[in-house]
Amino acid sequence: MIERICLPLRWQNTQLSVLDQTQLPQRSVWLEIHSPDDMVRAIQRLSVRGAPLIGVAATVAVAQQALKVMADEYFKTNSPIPATPSQRQDFLLLISQLRNSRPTAVNLMNLLDAQKAAFEASAGDLRVLVTTALSFFDEDVAMAERMSLQTAEFINDGDQILTHCNTGGLATVGIGTALGGIKQAWRQGKRIHVYVDETRPLLQGARLTTWELQQEGIPFTLITDNMAGAAMAQGKINKAFVGADRIAANGDVANKIGTYSVAVLARYHQIPFYVVAPQSTLDPQTKTGRDIVVEERSAHEVILPGQVFSDPEAQKVWNPSFDVTPRELITAIITDRGPQAFAATTV
Amino acid sequence: MIERICLPLRWQNTQLSVLDQTQLPQRSVWLEIHSPDDMVRAIQRLSVRGAPLIGVAATVAVAQQALKVMADEYFKTNSPIPATPSQRQDFLLLISQLRNSRPTAVNLMNLLDAQKAAFEASAGDLRVLVTTALSFFDEDVAMAERMSLQTAEFINDGDQILTHCNTGGLATVGIGTALGGIKQAWRQGKRIHVYVDETRPLLQGARLTTWELQQEGIPFTLITDNMAGAAMAQGKINKAFVGADRIAANGDVANKIGTYSVAVLARYHQIPFYVVAPQSTLDPQTKTGRDIVVEERSAHEVILPGQVFSDPEAQKVWNPSFDVTPRELITAIITDRGPQAFAATTV
Repeated sequence: MIERICLPLRWQNTQLSVLDQTQLPQRSVWLEIHSPDDMVRAIQRLSVRGAPLIGVAATVAVAQQALKVMADEYFKTNSPIPATPSQRQDFLLLISQLRNSRPTAVNLMNLLDAQKAAFEASAGDLRVLVTTALSFFDEDVAMAERMSLQTAEFINDGDQILTHCNTGGLATVGIGTALGGIKQAWRQGKRIHVYVDETRPLLQGARLTTWELQQEGIPFTLITDNMAGAAMAQGKINKAFVGADRIAANGDVANKIGTYSVAVLARYHQIPFYVVAPQSTLDPQTKTGRDIVVEERSAHEVILPGQVFSDPEAQKVWNPSFDVTPRELITAIITDRGPQAFAATTV
Repeated sequence: MIERICLPLRWQNTQLSVLDQTQLPQRSVWLEIHSPDDMVRAIQRLSVRGAPLIGVAATVAVAQQALKVMADEYFKTNSPIPATPSQRQDFLLLISQLRNSRPTAVNLMNLLDAQKAAFEASAGDLRVLVTTALSFFDEDVAMAERMSLQTAEFINDGDQILTHCNTGGLATVGIGTALGGIKQAWRQGKRIHVYVDETRPLLQGARLTTWELQQEGIPFTLITDNMAGAAMAQGKINKAFVGADRIAANGDVANKIGTYSVAVLARYHQIPFYVVAPQSTLDPQTKTGRDIVVEERSAHEVILPGQVFSDPEAQKVWNPSFDVTPRELITAIITDRGPQAFAATTV
């Protein structure tokens, strides 16, 4: 019996479902995932989102497919179950399709690459597709827990913390990244208050972070993204914590659009600005933030119902999902091993 | 026959109506105003908004009431029509109620105070309540036109301009303030592109500024407020123009929430940041931005339909309508007389 349950994902043998995060907090709807294709769609429509989560979820979708192919064989033996040449081709294609489902978060690429490498190293043992996914899930939970403890070290009693987007249990299979650290500090008895950027256009802060904070009982204040500067100027915020979708070799960080503005505002107000991310977010292959591909999504995420532009050629919407914060604006990048050093840092 | 028609307001004798700006761009609905009370409500629910507009509109509502009291008398004579003591009390009360309808934009106070002063100087001549409103309307149109010409001097062919909130014909009875200058530059043949901050929570940029820009045929790109920083970092923006709701004696500027963040981001990217406002926005009585009362509005403007906070005491929404940008972040404050000097400026 395989069973892995977390806030946004439920995996039992060949049964797999994900919480449709586009419908939170109004409705808790679980989407059944029957194939890697279903998972690609769930990732692309952001039902499954959060860099650490989509990495693990993608490998779990591959594992689900492998379990279907192996049927009961998986549970009857501990020996390798070799894929036929055609099955092997199929799985490499599935992994490649999942890998291309979104371009910016590198956890997706890193975990699928590791799953594929293990599969190939085993000369195509289908079991390996399952065992890797299980270990990624379990490692992510353990890593998030360690990361939250490391992050909580940076949080003091009385802190007024700004956070952007959602970086909690919904964004990972564990306690979360930045929000995980905030939760950990709260559980340690530190009296904190969280300012939540609503995070336009898709309102992950207003919808998801407030939902998680309420479940923990952590006091918070919801603000629109453009209020963060005024809140800082009025002394309402003394630290900022965000997650990351990809961290380049020099420490530049791609994260949810708006993160860069928070970093500039924090610098202007001399407020420490922390990035919290697991090892799987580090991308040594990408030299600097300039080399990170930033996904641009549909105008429909930004425009209002009923709003029509008369000349779509001249008048348009820019909708980058992420922006890049240079290392020099970041006080510390915290991983499960603590603050990370970057060779090329200018700070 | 009295007739003053502008984009957001229609005044013909005792008939007065305002465009309900909360319903734009989906619907163009005109609200009939039958009394100063109606105008107070229209201002409070933001059907009528924009600092210069609400100033003029409030005095027009007083004029409408005066015309009703005078009936045809107003058109039959040019002599003073003295108010009875009780009428005089009524008008002073109405003016005071209108004056308190919103706290931050000083144009409202300035124009009503001038209307009241003229009424009292005339020993209660009801005609004066009408003639002052007419002259404020006409002066505002002329002032906006001059201001737009002054502002256009700061705009060059090829400029990529960021603007925040709505500062056009919908915010004034004339061409507008910041957006008026942008329109004027476009009419002068300068090829410009406008980046429009959507301006949460009430989306005046996404709803109203894009509507006006489309009518002028000016190319624009709509962004969420949290994209402005990324757009600046990518060299998409080379100037920022905003309006003002109140300018303190030292040049600090209260304007729509989010303006301060734009100013900080502009400074960080060495992008000129201009404020455009009529004389009626200047408030010599208020020494610095710290003395400006910032209206805080209902949480319902920010939260999502269906979103419920379980513990409203601990978890809440902060919804300031305005923020204060200190003079030192402002490249120039442009009025109808050109760039304004401030004694206490540190730039």
